[in-house]
Amino acid sequence: MQLSDLSRGLDTVWVVLTAAMILLMEGGFALLEAGFVRQKNAVSIIMKVFVDIAFGALVYYLIGFALMYGKDAFGLIGGSGFFMRGDLAHLPVNISHETYWLFQCAFVIAVISIVSGAAAERIHFRAYIVYTIVMTGLIYPISGHWIWSSGGWLGKLGMIDFAGSAAIHALGGFAALAAALFLGPRLGRYGAEGKVNIVPPSNLPLASVGAFVLWFGWFGFNSGSTLSATNAAIGHIAVTTMLASAAGCAACILFTILRYQKADPPMVINGALAGLVGITAGCAYVSDGAAILIGAVSGVAMVLASEWLEGRKVDDPVGAFAVHGVSGAIGTLAVGLFAQPGAAAHAGLFYGGGWRLLGVQALGLAVVAVWGFALTWVTLRLIGWWRPVRVTADEELVGLDVSIHGVPAYSQDRDFIDIDLLRQSDPFPPKQR
Amino acid sequence: MQLSDLSRGLDTVWVVLTAAMILLMEGGFALLEAGFVRQKNAVSIIMKVFVDIAFGALVYYLIGFALMYGKDAFGLIGGSGFFMRGDLAHLPVNISHETYWLFQCAFVIAVISIVSGAAAERIHFRAYIVYTIVMTGLIYPISGHWIWSSGGWLGKLGMIDFAGSAAIHALGGFAALAAALFLGPRLGRYGAEGKVNIVPPSNLPLASVGAFVLWFGWFGFNSGSTLSATNAAIGHIAVTTMLASAAGCAACILFTILRYQKADPPMVINGALAGLVGITAGCAYVSDGAAILIGAVSGVAMVLASEWLEGRKVDDPVGAFAVHGVSGAIGTLAVGLFAQPGAAAHAGLFYGGGWRLLGVQALGLAVVAVWGFALTWVTLRLIGWWRPVRVTADEELVGLDVSIHGVPAYSQDRDFIDIDLLRQSDPFPPKQR
Amino acid sequence: MQLSDLSRGLDTVWVVLTAAMILLMEGGFALLEAGFVRQKNAVSIIMKVFVDIAFGALVYYLIGFALMYGKDAFGLIGGSGFFMRGDLAHLPVNISHETYWLFQCAFVIAVISIVSGAAAERIHFRAYIVYTIVMTGLIYPISGHWIWSSGGWLGKLGMIDFAGSAAIHALGGFAALAAALFLGPRLGRYGAEGKVNIVPPSNLPLASVGAFVLWFGWFGFNSGSTLSATNAAIGHIAVTTMLASAAGCAACILFTILRYQKADPPMVINGALAGLVGITAGCAYVSDGAAILIGAVSGVAMVLASEWLEGRKVDDPVGAFAVHGVSGAIGTLAVGLFAQPGAAAHAGLFYGGGWRLLGVQALGLAVVAVWGFALTWVTLRLIGWWRPVRVTADEELVGLDVSIHGVPAYSQDRDFIDIDLLRQSDPFPPKQR
Repeated sequence: MQLSDLSRGLDTVWVVLTAAMILLMEGGFALLEAGFVRQKNAVSIIMKVFVDIAFGALVYYLIGFALMYGKDAFGLIGGSGFFMRGDLAHLPVNISHETYWLFQCAFVIAVISIVSGAAAERIHFRAYIVYTIVMTGLIYPISGHWIWSSGGWLGKLGMIDFAGSAAIHALGGFAALAAALFLGPRLGRYGAEGKVNIVPPSNLPLASVGAFVLWFGWFGFNSGSTLSATNAAIGHIAVTTMLASAAGCAACILFTILRYQKADPPMVINGALAGLVGITAGCAYVSDGAAILIGAVSGVAMVLASEWLEGRKVDDPVGAFAVHGVSGAIGTLAVGLFAQPGAAAHAGLFYGGGWRLLGVQALGLAVVAVWGFALTWVTLRLIGWWRPVRVTADEELVGLDVSIHGVPAYSQDRDFIDIDLLRQSDPFPPKQR
Repeated sequence: MQLSDLSRGLDTVWVVLTAAMILLMEGGFALLEAGFVRQKNAVSIIMKVFVDIAFGALVYYLIGFALMYGKDAFGLIGGSGFFMRGDLAHLPVNISHETYWLFQCAFVIAVISIVSGAAAERIHFRAYIVYTIVMTGLIYPISGHWIWSSGGWLGKLGMIDFAGSAAIHALGGFAALAAALFLGPRLGRYGAEGKVNIVPPSNLPLASVGAFVLWFGWFGFNSGSTLSATNAAIGHIAVTTMLASAAGCAACILFTILRYQKADPPMVINGALAGLVGITAGCAYVSDGAAILIGAVSGVAMVLASEWLEGRKVDDPVGAFAVHGVSGAIGTLAVGLFAQPGAAAHAGLFYGGGWRLLGVQALGLAVVAVWGFALTWVTLRLIGWWRPVRVTADEELVGLDVSIHGVPAYSQDRDFIDIDLLRQSDPFPPKQR
Repeated sequence: MQLSDLSRGLDTVWVVLTAAMILLMEGGFALLEAGFVRQKNAVSIIMKVFVDIAFGALVYYLIGFALMYGKDAFGLIGGSGFFMRGDLAHLPVNISHETYWLFQCAFVIAVISIVSGAAAERIHFRAYIVYTIVMTGLIYPISGHWIWSSGGWLGKLGMIDFAGSAAIHALGGFAALAAALFLGPRLGRYGAEGKVNIVPPSNLPLASVGAFVLWFGWFGFNSGSTLSATNAAIGHIAVTTMLASAAGCAACILFTILRYQKADPPMVINGALAGLVGITAGCAYVSDGAAILIGAVSGVAMVLASEWLEGRKVDDPVGAFAVHGVSGAIGTLAVGLFAQPGAAAHAGLFYGGGWRLLGVQALGLAVVAVWGFALTWVTLRLIGWWRPVRVTADEELVGLDVSIHGVPAYSQDRDFIDIDLLRQSDPFPPKQR
């Protein structure tokens, strides 16, 4: 046994365990989304999470990883490592290339899961599969290459995004916004004469547990991004992650008490997540105090963004843009303000680094936001030429669980279904029509 | 790469991962409590868990940690380390102070979550926030200092409490008892002429899954308390934890079959937890056989304590006192009987150590129980001068989800809520009144 | 601090954490099974999972481990290590014997949990406890000894089963088939004249989350089976595990769309699990491409096996045989085809190793399948002489939750139950009769 063997073993164990934690976040996304949507679409949204993992992992293995972390061409795209073959010697890691892939694979699955929430209750399942393939094979890998690969042009400019407030969350959030706008609101969500109808979450305990699972996974997400167990920043990363999420959640509790005279459960749930998204870019670089501030601002901004979207009749069923897009943007810019000289390669504005880092962060954020939004819109438009992206009004009113997947999420008192009935085209009486 | 770097990295990884596991226990508490209470209060109890994490972490960062682990004054209280500043050089750890804080923060959140269950379905949300601040900033840190800090007077007397049967569970359990007594039983729980009404758990599958998540987290809770990955006791700790919980659960299965002619699900769920609580103090010091015995006794005692409390018309909705208070007491005393000479600093009564350790354990337990009970009572009394601690009868009958948080936990078949309706003061028809 | 201390500490941490992940899989089994069965049996199936852990761990501690990993006699059975005493020096591990036990204990609990699903909704609780004792104390330890202990005859023949496609899943799956056949179908499942009635899953979101939890735990299951953190295969194992599960899930999505014109949620859920079961034997030995193939074949085979069983009127409520038995068989045989020379002790058929390994794998699989099936049948028959193995028709129609455990899984709008009512023999009006 050599010291180097041990070091490599320790790093491998660290990365595999944190990757597994990030993959468990898919269970969190499923719970969160199934709890927030209506009962008649609870299975349908979870099926999309299965698509995220299954197609996301395979596509990222075959194509995405190579475009993202393969040999750089012009700072724009990678070109080796398709199905993990070819030259990957430039990867600066103490772990095997496969272990590295596993961690990155967990990330790409998180990105696409962000979009699934905004498209919930109305996107067609097959269209969603195609979109997943494009997102995990093309959209995310390319912008990810710009920020995170050793040759990427944004990274070379000095953009700092430790665990992905921009590369993951802002990209996913702006893609989610594009999907929500492209699909349009759910039927009946916005009535005539400016009337707003609230869709009550079907299962808030499930949604809450989803948040706790995501919270747990985030410690893998942020701390694991060191990719090395001997990185001295691990403890600090975990602490800023904890403090920012606590601040985001506490801020939403207090802010909704002040604003609505009640601690609003969906906002409290999303407040914790907003704090987590906000700290993701800077967790290794900002002070504890800055982390608390970033978390609190992300939480309050998420509430205001949700209200603003509703006022503009945008329908984002789980608040994907408000949580990931807005807080991701805040987190990305916050690095430009709060990055500490010792920790980050460049110091932020408040630590004597001047405006440069903030400018780079703003540029990177804008690029990622436009890229995520535009490519998603174009992709959905292209899919629409092939087949409908949105389900029919009838399917939507019945609910996607029964109309698309042929089974309801909950069958409380029902003992049996006659199989001959199931074989018919429309097995359940469409009482909601 | 030096051996010491690797050692520090390994310890850091160990502590961060186990801390994350303990934080996931909050998801377990939320599931357990939401499943045990009535549906009309399922969101309200989960919102309290969000308060536990959000306010608990921030308060413990600002104040609690310093009082608990700061520089000792007279064996009574710590006085440095407010927001992690000041002299903390006396902390005997191979990890960063921040990493150490993270682990301790996960502990304090667990303490306050114990109390939330006993206060369920009737405590007012804002009163609960204030109580959380006092518990995590003052009550727990001070008694924790006595037991666990290097200068604490109980620790110096020789009290042994490896992962907190006393410092965490007995404290939380007796605080929970005080809260249950202070608040009084839920409306209708105890009828006229000694009539007892059972509140049926609203969602036992959720409650069970909560127990499984807590079970998982407990391996972090107990094994992680070594704070060092090279502590040779880790394997033994995990095994005694497994055996005691299995024994607690199995004992409750058999005991309730004998006593009620059926394996009683809520008791089986709590039996596993009782075994876990019971072994928490001695997991590193007692033999496998003693662990099985401690677990089984804790399980049976929990059943009897639940019955006894019900006979005295105390209403503890999730059995917080029976699980954490009673089993915590058993676990604390058991160390005085079963501590093995090689493992613990002092041997227990059955291992030739005489009565001394048992006496110290009993003293420490009594101190913690009185402290937790009295301070909780006083705090709730003080809060009561400011504003009501208990919701009104109308709010309680409607359920706290709708009356306090404005949203039901489950909205099965409902498609929309008119937002104008929500803006009115009492949005849902109070059918249960 | 020595290098060897650090190495031992790292291995211990790795094994304890992965063992905890495997134990969390019990929460996954509970969710999956409670979601797949009818609401009236959701608590009853979860109580069986508690039995799995509680009795499984104790029995494996007292007896099972010794028979499995104790000193070998004739390649057939172990004979030392009862309650971890006696000579265990032959165990080739860098961790303590107790830590080793913990990991193996997590495995045995998984085996018995497989069977619980096939017996759901009709096995009597007390009979199930006895069967659990026999399975975890005798059936699994003995066949496990043949494959995995250093002296076992199948292992000596050259059988390769890295993390247990055969030793765990095929054994559990064929035992599940025996239980399903012995008990017979649920009342009304198969009507007169070949009519098939579908039992709608009561809670698909819960079942899905169960799958995500199992998925997470499987990374501990497969990667942790190295029992050493410096095993260079860890990364590869985690990656093949990821790819096979993704392929199994994606294959089921596409195959059910082709076959039923809809992505069938229960099949998609089980497809991911089938992929995981399939790769369990070969995860350390096969290439990424082979892993994808094994996963996809396992998924499709699971769908076909489910149909085939239904055509033969076998009633396996959660698909335990189709997932664990069939995919376990495929995974065991696949090693004989795809094992790579550098990784495994023998190469498979497609890598120049000839037919020998495939033959041994087939022999081992047949032995395990017959052993699991026959011993389960005999055990249930013996239990039947003592007391009924299956509940009465009345109990089954009311549901086991109320008839056996005296409490319903969900009590939506009910505020109280009169305790005098509970004391009567049949507390709930049997509306379903």
